[in-house]
Amino acid sequence: MISLSLIGIGTGNPEHVTLAAVRALNEADLILLPRKGEAKSDLIDLRRLLCRDLLEASSRTRVVEFDLPCRDARADYLGAVDDWHDAIAEVWADLMATHLPEGGRVGMLIWGDPSLYDSSLRIAERLGDKGQALEIRVEPGITSLQALTAAHCIPLNALAEPVLITTGRRLRERGWPSDAESVAVMLDSGGAFQALPQEGLTVWWGAYLGMDKQCLIDGPLVDVAATILERRAALRERHGWIMDVYLLRRM
Amino acid sequence: MISLSLIGIGTGNPEHVTLAAVRALNEADLILLPRKGEAKSDLIDLRRLLCRDLLEASSRTRVVEFDLPCRDARADYLGAVDDWHDAIAEVWADLMATHLPEGGRVGMLIWGDPSLYDSSLRIAERLGDKGQALEIRVEPGITSLQALTAAHCIPLNALAEPVLITTGRRLRERGWPSDAESVAVMLDSGGAFQALPQEGLTVWWGAYLGMDKQCLIDGPLVDVAATILERRAALRERHGWIMDVYLLRRM
Ligand SMILES: C[S@@+](CC[C@H](N)C(=O)[O-])C[C@H]1O[C@@H](n2cnc3c(N)ncnc32)[C@H](O)[C@@H]1O
Ligand SMILES: C[S@@+](CC[C@H](N)C(=O)[O-])C[C@H]1O[C@@H](n2cnc3c(N)ncnc32)[C@H](O)[C@@H]1O
Repeated sequence: MISLSLIGIGTGNPEHVTLAAVRALNEADLILLPRKGEAKSDLIDLRRLLCRDLLEASSRTRVVEFDLPCRDARADYLGAVDDWHDAIAEVWADLMATHLPEGGRVGMLIWGDPSLYDSSLRIAERLGDKGQALEIRVEPGITSLQALTAAHCIPLNALAEPVLITTGRRLRERGWPSDAESVAVMLDSGGAFQALPQEGLTVWWGAYLGMDKQCLIDGPLVDVAATILERRAALRERHGWIMDVYLLRRM
Repeated sequence: MISLSLIGIGTGNPEHVTLAAVRALNEADLILLPRKGEAKSDLIDLRRLLCRDLLEASSRTRVVEFDLPCRDARADYLGAVDDWHDAIAEVWADLMATHLPEGGRVGMLIWGDPSLYDSSLRIAERLGDKGQALEIRVEPGITSLQALTAAHCIPLNALAEPVLITTGRRLRERGWPSDAESVAVMLDSGGAFQALPQEGLTVWWGAYLGMDKQCLIDGPLVDVAATILERRAALRERHGWIMDVYLLRRM
């Protein structure tokens, strides 16, 4: 029997972990740390740092790093993701069989919160489907969206009004939604807001939230759209990777 | 000069506070704890418990409780809220003038995350408008929505799809949105989902999330809607108050 904890760790600020996450880390027999390739080595660095700083001397948790399989870049997006999740589930299963042949508690450090645009829960389900006796637990974590609103000191929603959380891809395809005056955009490969009429929109943008290189820009979209695009390109060039998120509000 | 920290504390589980929140609590000169009346005394109890458990012996933080003004129940909702926020800002200003005449660091413990359906940021702005020299900081906290998805071990969004976060009031008024297949509903005075055609919707419902009395129900909405309504009424009767939140997904 494997008890698998998906532990939210925030998105860059090591102090964004919760006390429950610290406890879950220390109670795990095994922590699996995925390596995602060179460019994003900052990201595994945060996970390593959390393990180093938060695991108590008395804890008997073993930390094992592994290489995450790569996703096919093929056009059939959902199909490629499906195969990729299968491949990851297989790697997880092998690691658990190797390091915990008798079963035990496994912890995985999940970027932000495990509920938000993250596939670990779906991958974990596949382990169960493959016949692994499995209990899943989730420890919530601070999302990049919360790091964004906290850094800008702004509310996510306008008073008593709804908010749509969406992706860059979807914003490009569908334009401004009819159901919300506040739209949070994640997973944007760059400037999806260019697909919108910019008049009347305010933007709060943030990259590398919670990290030393955090960068914030806000203002009327007509005034700052070009600045965001330039800054984003320059930062990406400088650091080799970028993650950014933004909130748009019609006011 | 007042430095005001709005510190997210999660929504019931005392281990949902972050290390950054613990630090902010301990660095404050003054913590203001609002009392919201008898029925919800569990809620101030959590705040008291966090202060008791998390303030280090060496910290010189003073904790001061105060009675939150009541909101007018008048029909003009936005107007009543506006007056209420003014009244609260005045109480905050008085407390700061009394307890920190030379200025200093004030901490306020905010339920969940300060960005989500919470007015503290808007009230704090009024202090600034009144001429108080003010610096605002936000420490993010785990929201009730994250407590919900963690308790049910579910993702908030379907793969690469958007999510609408909305209120019971709005769901009743507008029905199912056209822009999302996942809808999270907060601030529902009870059963707003009854305004929807229930066929094809799955619901994950939670009340008192993170607390000992936490209650979870999930399933196809057609099957569990009545159970949720009954359970909600019974729990509310038993405890004198209720807070619940749910996720609906069309699948
Ligand atoms: C695969 S999703 C994971 C989201 C994560 N589970 C969370 O709770 O925020 C990755 C997206 O999250 C956002 N993101 C994550 N970390 C970020 C950071 N430190 N700064 C800015 N955006 C970030 C970006 O929009 C990025 O494309
Ligand atoms: C004024 S809003 C505050 C939300 C809070 N800032 C957050 O981050 O969750 C109050 C609403 O949050 C939800 N809520 C807050 N705490 C909850 C809990 N412990 N269990 C279930 N729902 C909760 C309910 O929908 C409630 O009507």
